[in-house]
Amino acid sequence: MLFSSLDGLSQEQRERLLNRRRTHAEVEARVAAILERVRLHGDSALLELTKELDGVEPETLRVPAEVMEEAMSSVQEEVLEALETAKSSIEEFHSRQVPEDWRYTKDGATLGMVYRPLESVGCYVPGGRASYPSTVLMCAVPARLAGVERVVVCTPPGEHGYPAPLTLAACRIAGVEEVYSIGGAQAIAALAYGTRSIPRVEKIVGPGNVYVTAAKRLVSGEVATDMPAGPSEVLILADATADPWFVALDMLAQAEHDPMAVSVLVTTSEELAREVVDALERASGEAPPAAREALTAWGAVLIAESLDEAVEFANAFAPEHLEVMVEDEEQVLRRIRSAGSVFLGTRSPVACGDYASGTNHVLPTSGYAKAFSGLGVADFMKRITFQKLSDEALERLGRAAVTLARAEGLEMHARSIEARLERRYHD
Amino acid sequence: MLFSSLDGLSQEQRERLLNRRRTHAEVEARVAAILERVRLHGDSALLELTKELDGVEPETLRVPAEVMEEAMSSVQEEVLEALETAKSSIEEFHSRQVPEDWRYTKDGATLGMVYRPLESVGCYVPGGRASYPSTVLMCAVPARLAGVERVVVCTPPGEHGYPAPLTLAACRIAGVEEVYSIGGAQAIAALAYGTRSIPRVEKIVGPGNVYVTAAKRLVSGEVATDMPAGPSEVLILADATADPWFVALDMLAQAEHDPMAVSVLVTTSEELAREVVDALERASGEAPPAAREALTAWGAVLIAESLDEAVEFANAFAPEHLEVMVEDEEQVLRRIRSAGSVFLGTRSPVACGDYASGTNHVLPTSGYAKAFSGLGVADFMKRITFQKLSDEALERLGRAAVTLARAEGLEMHARSIEARLERRYHD
Repeated sequence: MLFSSLDGLSQEQRERLLNRRRTHAEVEARVAAILERVRLHGDSALLELTKELDGVEPETLRVPAEVMEEAMSSVQEEVLEALETAKSSIEEFHSRQVPEDWRYTKDGATLGMVYRPLESVGCYVPGGRASYPSTVLMCAVPARLAGVERVVVCTPPGEHGYPAPLTLAACRIAGVEEVYSIGGAQAIAALAYGTRSIPRVEKIVGPGNVYVTAAKRLVSGEVATDMPAGPSEVLILADATADPWFVALDMLAQAEHDPMAVSVLVTTSEELAREVVDALERASGEAPPAAREALTAWGAVLIAESLDEAVEFANAFAPEHLEVMVEDEEQVLRRIRSAGSVFLGTRSPVACGDYASGTNHVLPTSGYAKAFSGLGVADFMKRITFQKLSDEALERLGRAAVTLARAEGLEMHARSIEARLERRYHD
Repeated sequence: MLFSSLDGLSQEQRERLLNRRRTHAEVEARVAAILERVRLHGDSALLELTKELDGVEPETLRVPAEVMEEAMSSVQEEVLEALETAKSSIEEFHSRQVPEDWRYTKDGATLGMVYRPLESVGCYVPGGRASYPSTVLMCAVPARLAGVERVVVCTPPGEHGYPAPLTLAACRIAGVEEVYSIGGAQAIAALAYGTRSIPRVEKIVGPGNVYVTAAKRLVSGEVATDMPAGPSEVLILADATADPWFVALDMLAQAEHDPMAVSVLVTTSEELAREVVDALERASGEAPPAAREALTAWGAVLIAESLDEAVEFANAFAPEHLEVMVEDEEQVLRRIRSAGSVFLGTRSPVACGDYASGTNHVLPTSGYAKAFSGLGVADFMKRITFQKLSDEALERLGRAAVTLARAEGLEMHARSIEARLERRYHD
């Protein structure tokens, strides 16, 4: 783990922290071959690839209704209740994102915007050894609120050929009935190109490993996709008022996602920095090996000269998750320019937002928060502009349009406007 | 040109109309090589490529301030005024898209969203033989309204090494000072990777030819990009109340963009259909060869049995531009699910919207309107969610989060929440 003052960082250390985007040329080549197999051979390629890569042979790609039903009864009541709590928080927050159509009329021109749902969306939900029912909710709940009619989930098969009951139960709770037992790049190919069993979708969302991410990038000319995904990350911006034990636990929670997960503390308090290092030592005995590995390789405790310097570093880092544990959090929030989601104060751990607060956990990593947003209702809708001009408006605007059309050499554009302007006097 | 009833279309004809996405494997290979040259050799590759592909050697990649200044004085006063009119319409419509931060508090949990501009954006503006000052405004005005600090324009050099004065004047009017005399895939590479002269940007927007579009797709892991672009297109949905001469001129206006541009009329009136065919014959003598070529290859006049059937076809087509010339336009607008921008009534030709009405002309083509939106202020901003939980809120939500964290096997996630819940009683 790196321990340094911000201005003591070498150029190389700073680069490694701030430049976290990775390309994987060899992964892309393998993924391109998988995509091509699915494009050419459809379902039979999907079944072969699932056998090759997941080692199982599901009877059907689509999870049958009775398997979905059984999943509900095999999951503990307490977990089902927790999923319902999470769902209603996510619904609450995301329902406030549903836009309303608007219009205005000015000088005879009515202009406006209407919002329409995508017709079909595919949600990729990681799986395999672990299961991520929370990701089902984070993708499907906003899609449903947007009004998407066809919401599909693809998730890798478990050892018996169908996905984990917990994931299937989350699909039921989110109202998703079309679930396919297929993972990896082959799932992305099926959603993008369509096969006999899996009709194509208009957009693919949801996190995934490097294969899934590469596949989403490669099919992005065929379908829309959400933001690229990399290892999970947290940046904690703290002053002397922060609790070192909470900071340490939040760093370890982030680190347990992935051996390449990034946990960084930036603090104005050297004392806090030392206490967090102590706390990490005490706590990491209980943490899984992956978390300790990630913390060793990618963890950092950095001391800032001032809150200004700390905020500037956070903006340059553009973290997926930003925790702000300082005296005046709102002042910091106002100055944040790039982050996926922000967690203010001592009682707002990332882990609570991951599941139950209501904000979305599908967020831009690797500095992509500089240009991308976390998943929201807007990702499942199109904005369509419209206009209706009166004679007066066309007279006012049309002359400028005719001039510009001729300046750009588009004569018929000019004529199509002039014909209306002339007709006005002939009607 | 195709003339048919909708249900008389062969499967092949229907497919050709509805499935307009094209891939260009050989273009992608050439583009990949260009990207790699720029990535490895920066400015020297840019200068070499400009000499090779555009046949000119600009003294500097960046257009000097005095050249920008000269451009203003070399453009006709009338055109400058038209650009100012267009700019203020675009500002008016787009300023209504600037979102406001929002938050709410419920049961001790404060959740909300803040909107932040991207820090840097590159606008690609096509050029070469023609110049497109209107595209400068369509990209730069919303970027400025969003609050983007660094707005860059890349546009191909004209024969004297710098871009057309008209394009440069539009940059001045839009407040863009950083303009580079570079086009094609090499411009996209420069914006994505950065070179010594051209620092990289966070997002690339704007239309372009197949090379530019392929380049944007290939760099989309490095930077954000707007929607993919194909040949321009209009679908005109009309009943017997429409004016055949206006319909014909609008079809020709669309067709003059590109020999592959698509102009389609779908009408419930067989009489209108025949009158439009006559009008097209009369008018096309005056149209440029490219327009006649496009109309022959891609034009279609289609007769629908009912308005329902016509609307359904329009939604399946998902046109870039949709003109609606029917008795009750608002009823049709309510039923439109996919289109780039909609033009209602007799006095709203696409050409006026292209320049001066205020809506954006950078729009999804080739059916991408099913999943993508036209350019708007939202494309230049990120949505950042935030939360602040009270003890009560953490108590209420934290238990569900702990349960789900353990169900997903993320022990440290559970601990990070439990530590807060326990501390509450120790404080």
